[in-house]
Amino acid sequence: LFGSIDHVGVAVRDLDAAISWYEQTFGMRLAHIETNEEQGVREAMLEVGTSGPQLQLIAPLRDDSPVGRFLASRGEGLHQVAYSVDDLAEAAATLRSRGVELLYDQPRRGTAGTRVNFIHPKAAGGFLVELVQAAPEGAEST
Amino acid sequence: LFGSIDHVGVAVRDLDAAISWYEQTFGMRLAHIETNEEQGVREAMLEVGTSGPQLQLIAPLRDDSPVGRFLASRGEGLHQVAYSVDDLAEAAATLRSRGVELLYDQPRRGTAGTRVNFIHPKAAGGFLVELVQAAPEGAEST
Ligand SMILES: [Co+2]
Ligand SMILES: [Co+2]
Repeated sequence: LFGSIDHVGVAVRDLDAAISWYEQTFGMRLAHIETNEEQGVREAMLEVGTSGPQLQLIAPLRDDSPVGRFLASRGEGLHQVAYSVDDLAEAAATLRSRGVELLYDQPRRGTAGTRVNFIHPKAAGGFLVELVQAAPEGAEST
Repeated sequence: LFGSIDHVGVAVRDLDAAISWYEQTFGMRLAHIETNEEQGVREAMLEVGTSGPQLQLIAPLRDDSPVGRFLASRGEGLHQVAYSVDDLAEAAATLRSRGVELLYDQPRRGTAGTRVNFIHPKAAGGFLVELVQAAPEGAEST
């Protein structure tokens, strides 16, 4: 069903401060930064090392956004795990057939042109699960 | 400093139920299971897809273990991110030089013969960070 872990998402209050901390303390490299108004977030992708999944830092644009509410109730910390899928529609259908509902009827725009959908923490063991279908070749990226 | 994300750890109350759920719902494959008395956990490693970091399921052996206390205060959910390092002693020295203390003076035994140490959530953005040095060639594994 899943190809691999695509990224691990961390909720932070101050995105720029968090990026600097990860660069200076852990030696990670900033790969991408963007604002997603629809999701109410400003977010950054960090390369952890030489390969593999990235670490995503997610800061809320507004207190009443999902990430703003997460920070108010749980504080900064681990927010989501994103799994890559080849075909998001097919993965969604498979999950629905196994009794797992996704948050949205239709995929939304994720980081850097990806298509994404989510499973609510209550249906996925206590944390947000994101499904990520890669951006089509030639799509807007970094 | 880090090679890549080695695994993402999830705290669960019932390890066997969680393994079954991940196998049946997400199609993940059980790669390893073990009890670590020193850490007070029973844990499993799941292969997410065809490659990349594994998902670690962690259940407490006792309520007064660190994972038992985590479950009591936060409930089931994301517990830790583990990064691979070539040389744990060198990584620890680098982190200490940057003002980040590790939990233990000496490495502990991690999953399947690995050597591990940890950064406390308070010093790492709100979640437990694990550093993992691979088991030596020929060491006891899966
Ligand atoms: Co994400
Ligand atoms: Co671990």
